[in-house]
Amino acid sequence: MQAEQKEKATRFRSLHSGSSMLILPNVWDAASARIIEQAGFPAIATTSSGVAAALGYPDGQHISREMQVETTERITRVVHCPVSVDSEAGYGHTIEEVIESIRAIIAAGAVGINIEDTTKGPQRALVDIAYQVELIQALRHLATSMAIPFVINARTDIFLLPGDDPDARFAQTVQRANAYLQAGADCTFPIGVKDASTIARLVQAIQGPVNVAASFTTLSLPELAQLGVARVSFTSWVMRAVLGRLRVIARELFEHGTYESLASEALSSAELGKLW
Amino acid sequence: MQAEQKEKATRFRSLHSGSSMLILPNVWDAASARIIEQAGFPAIATTSSGVAAALGYPDGQHISREMQVETTERITRVVHCPVSVDSEAGYGHTIEEVIESIRAIIAAGAVGINIEDTTKGPQRALVDIAYQVELIQALRHLATSMAIPFVINARTDIFLLPGDDPDARFAQTVQRANAYLQAGADCTFPIGVKDASTIARLVQAIQGPVNVAASFTTLSLPELAQLGVARVSFTSWVMRAVLGRLRVIARELFEHGTYESLASEALSSAELGKLW
Repeated sequence: MQAEQKEKATRFRSLHSGSSMLILPNVWDAASARIIEQAGFPAIATTSSGVAAALGYPDGQHISREMQVETTERITRVVHCPVSVDSEAGYGHTIEEVIESIRAIIAAGAVGINIEDTTKGPQRALVDIAYQVELIQALRHLATSMAIPFVINARTDIFLLPGDDPDARFAQTVQRANAYLQAGADCTFPIGVKDASTIARLVQAIQGPVNVAASFTTLSLPELAQLGVARVSFTSWVMRAVLGRLRVIARELFEHGTYESLASEALSSAELGKLW
Repeated sequence: MQAEQKEKATRFRSLHSGSSMLILPNVWDAASARIIEQAGFPAIATTSSGVAAALGYPDGQHISREMQVETTERITRVVHCPVSVDSEAGYGHTIEEVIESIRAIIAAGAVGINIEDTTKGPQRALVDIAYQVELIQALRHLATSMAIPFVINARTDIFLLPGDDPDARFAQTVQRANAYLQAGADCTFPIGVKDASTIARLVQAIQGPVNVAASFTTLSLPELAQLGVARVSFTSWVMRAVLGRLRVIARELFEHGTYESLASEALSSAELGKLW
């Protein structure tokens, strides 16, 4: 079991430096995870806001550590490929608490995590870089102590925060990203970047794999690959698209009483059964 | 709290004899429940196979009573309208065990349940009519003892079973449906009926509200209403449609690296936030 998880962690890490860009259409439950795996994607990542929405909670660490761990278990139980969990800011107020959260998430079968560098609450604010570096070092240490070399995707939220000096934002993002890599992160995730030029410059200046969120840009996957992006994820976009489809279905039923949007793309009952 | 649940149960029952047919596009988690409620539907019903799929299990009572109760709690916590839970065969091997399951589901906030009259396992088989009548009487008694007049939708599975004498199936269905109504059911659900003529004859012969599953027929909702159907549900069809959309999105990302199916109908992040 542990050997298998270790192998998956190593395989997941290698997907960050392979010949193809790693594409992670983020999932929120066991069924969505299996659909993405069946489509051919070599790894699965979760969306924290999607996981929260499926459980009935808003984004921003309103779900408990236990809910996150339970969702992780349900997904890793049914998919065969590596699973990375969006752990928000780690469901804790201290480094010790965050480490306990991530230990539980890895024990639930995950081989990768996302960890953010902003505080939760009404006002998003960057945590001290020294704190985040210490946290990432502690996470790396945790991986060693658990003998599961899980992938740490260190998110930096500078482009999500208000600010009007693009050069300062760029410099701060690069500084944090490189500090996080140095501390033991495997990949950095400057969420919120949009334009090709900034993405290309970040890829140059950051000394490790870069994750871009497709939901913030109009650049297609081949265009992002050409810019040297290592990993693309979708935040809650995939779930929002699926819920949007549900809204279309609901409106058609409510207004017309017909089944066109229900019937056009549905899995058969047999296909639903074959998810497992 | 209990007064509110009692009022919801009464309201849900009255929707079975109102001027409009009750339409229940079955949901599987908190987010799907809120989308259906926001679209204007006056009540919510769950799909057992959808709930199971979201949790990573096949249909047919492979999830535990606890998982069903937890899902019920997550849904009733966020929707304002009445919620009915597809309880399969009640997650138990005896009437006492089934009663304990339904007690927990009602305690989790549901004001209606579906209960089936076939056994689970590799071979679907009808349970004795006497057993099912006794069970429904016990459920009615439970409602009285809890002082929550929850709606019992008694499913009869004769049209799902192999058989080639349509008259015998019809007669058996009517016999069971009327026995279940007499025992205290509020609505009967002859799942699997397809054609307008059989549906019209069932509505005539059954002495109470009839639930038809839209997933087995090509008749539109207005057509079903004209036949006198009181309630329409969708089994796992809505979830299968949404997962089918996810498959389309996944294939587009995998094969073309573009975002058309992602972007065309998606909820905005603000709309996702407004679910709660």
